[in-house]
Amino acid sequence: MSGTLGDLGEFGLIGALVARVPTGPHVSLGPGDDAAVVTAADGRVVATMDLLVEGRHFRRDWSTAYDVGRKAAAQNLADVAAMGAVPTALLIGLCGPPDLPTGWALELYDGLRDECAVVGAGVAGGDVVGGDTVTVAVTALGDLQGRAPVVRSGARPGDVVAVAGWLGWSAAGLAILGHGHRAPRAFVEAHRRPEPPYDAGPGAAVLGATSMIDVSDGLLADLGHVSRASGVRVDVLSGRLDVPAQMRDVARALGADPLNWVLTGGEDHALAATFPAGTALPARWRVIGRVHAGTGVTVDGRDPDVAGGWDHFDRG
Amino acid sequence: MSGTLGDLGEFGLIGALVARVPTGPHVSLGPGDDAAVVTAADGRVVATMDLLVEGRHFRRDWSTAYDVGRKAAAQNLADVAAMGAVPTALLIGLCGPPDLPTGWALELYDGLRDECAVVGAGVAGGDVVGGDTVTVAVTALGDLQGRAPVVRSGARPGDVVAVAGWLGWSAAGLAILGHGHRAPRAFVEAHRRPEPPYDAGPGAAVLGATSMIDVSDGLLADLGHVSRASGVRVDVLSGRLDVPAQMRDVARALGADPLNWVLTGGEDHALAATFPAGTALPARWRVIGRVHAGTGVTVDGRDPDVAGGWDHFDRG
Repeated sequence: MSGTLGDLGEFGLIGALVARVPTGPHVSLGPGDDAAVVTAADGRVVATMDLLVEGRHFRRDWSTAYDVGRKAAAQNLADVAAMGAVPTALLIGLCGPPDLPTGWALELYDGLRDECAVVGAGVAGGDVVGGDTVTVAVTALGDLQGRAPVVRSGARPGDVVAVAGWLGWSAAGLAILGHGHRAPRAFVEAHRRPEPPYDAGPGAAVLGATSMIDVSDGLLADLGHVSRASGVRVDVLSGRLDVPAQMRDVARALGADPLNWVLTGGEDHALAATFPAGTALPARWRVIGRVHAGTGVTVDGRDPDVAGGWDHFDRG
Repeated sequence: MSGTLGDLGEFGLIGALVARVPTGPHVSLGPGDDAAVVTAADGRVVATMDLLVEGRHFRRDWSTAYDVGRKAAAQNLADVAAMGAVPTALLIGLCGPPDLPTGWALELYDGLRDECAVVGAGVAGGDVVGGDTVTVAVTALGDLQGRAPVVRSGARPGDVVAVAGWLGWSAAGLAILGHGHRAPRAFVEAHRRPEPPYDAGPGAAVLGATSMIDVSDGLLADLGHVSRASGVRVDVLSGRLDVPAQMRDVARALGADPLNWVLTGGEDHALAATFPAGTALPARWRVIGRVHAGTGVTVDGRDPDVAGGWDHFDRG
C-alpha cells in the first residue's frame, strides 16, 4: 500500500492494520470496540508493557519495519514467558508522523503478527496516534495455566543458575552495524530479530525453577536483579558460557571482548533461571553458575570489572 | 524531588515511581518482576491501550503533570467502563527526555494514582524509557464480573439513545485556553481533568444496554461508530442535549457554537449507550435520541452540517 499515514487517516490506517493481524484463539473480542476481551483461563492474567522509541531502540535505516515489529513483540512475549506463562495476546500502540509511509506501519504489523504466531498469541487491540517520533508501545498478556508465577525473588543458596537461548549475539550484531558492516549475518540477524526461547519459560516453571528473568539488559545486570530480589550472591562461571568461535573472530576484528558481549549484551532475550541443585535439566538449559549466600553478582568468584547493563537516561 | 530523569537514572526513577502508586486489591504481583499478575475473576480480562503524546494530546504549559496523569488514566478507565466492566489495573509506559524534571514524572504518577483510586484500580507495572518527546502509554485492564461485554454492534431500531456524564465541557475548556483565557474555571478544569461516569458503565450492562461507547472523539463521531457497527441509523434530538447557560455565554464571547461543542467535542469521556425502549433508566442517563432502521447519524432527523470527530493525522 503506497502513501503515508496522513493520506490514509487514523481510521483508515486502523482498518488496514486490523485486517493484517489475526486475533487468535485467546481473544474473545478483538479490535473495533472500546476495549478487547481476552481469555484468562485460570482467573489471573500476566501483563507487561514496553515502549520502543525510534533512535533509542531501533533505527529505520538499520532495521526494517518488519524486524522492528518482530522485536517489539519478542521482547514483550519473552517477559511473559519469563514468568512461566504462555503468551495469549498483544495490544499495540503506534505513534507516527503524518509522513510515515503506510507501508512501514503495515510491515511493522506483519512482524508483530509473525512473532505472535510463534507462540500462538494474537493482537487484541491498540491505538494509533500522530506524533513526531515513531514510538511503539506493546502490552503482552499471558496465561499461567494454574501455576504460580516464577518471580525474581525465589533464588536460594545452592541453586544452580541456567540459561536457555542466546547471549551476546545481539550485542555482536549491534557492534557490527555500528562499524558500518552488514556481516556476519548471523549476528546482525540476531540483533534485528531475536529468537527468545519462549516455551522454555513455562517449561522452567514445570521443572521447578525457583526464579527466572528475561535477559534484556545483559546477563550480569539481569542476574543483579535476581540477586537483589532474592538476597543472594549469584556466581557466573565464565568457562560455562558459550562464546562461539565466530563471535571471537568478530570481536578480534572489531577490537572488542566477546565475553563482554556475552556478559553484558542485552536484547537476545535469553531466559536465566535458578533451579534446585540436582534438577534434571533438558539440554536447552545450560548451567552457567551457582547461587550462594551473600549479595551481588560475581564472575568466577570475583567482582566483574565490566560495566553491567544499560541505563536509558545515562548521558555518559 | 528535584533534578531530572537524567540525574536519577532509569532504575532510580522506576523505584521512585513504584513507591508512589499502590497496586490495589486486584494485583496479585505488582511492579518489580518481568510482568505483573492481575486477577481476572471470571476467566476473562478486558484490555485497552491509549497513547498520549506531548503537543498532540496535552501541553505542559496548559496542564500540570498531575492533570495529564489523571486524564491519561481517565480515558483508559472510561474505555473499560464502556464495555460494562470494572477497571482493575493499569500498566504505564513513560517516555521522556533526560532533562524532564523528576518532579514532573512523580506528579504524573500521582495523577494516575488518584484517578485509579476513584474506581479502586491499581498500577500493576509498566516501563520507563528515554526519548525526545514526552509520551505516556496506558493499558487498562478490567473485570466483566460474569456479564457479557456491551459492544458497539448491539443497537436495534426502537432502542433509545442515552448519555451519562458531560458533553462539550472539555471542548469549551480547550477553546477558552486556545484564546489565552483561564476562566470560567469549570470548563478549563473539565478539559484538564475529565470526570467520566465510570460506574454508569457496569450499571448500563446491568440495566440491559444493547450497545455502549465512550465518547472520546465527539458524540456524533462516536455514535457513528455505533451506527456502523450495528447497521442502524442513530438520531440525536438536539433539544434533549444539555447546553448549560454558562456554556452558551462562553460560546457567545468566543464566537463559537455551543451545540457544536456538545455534538463534536471529545475528551469528556461521557458514556453513550442504547437501551430497549421502556427501560427504566436512572436519572444519570439522559435520553438524547432514538435508534432507527437505516444508516448514519442524524440530528433531528437531518444530516448534521457540522464536521464530526477528529482525525489525528488530518493535516488540514
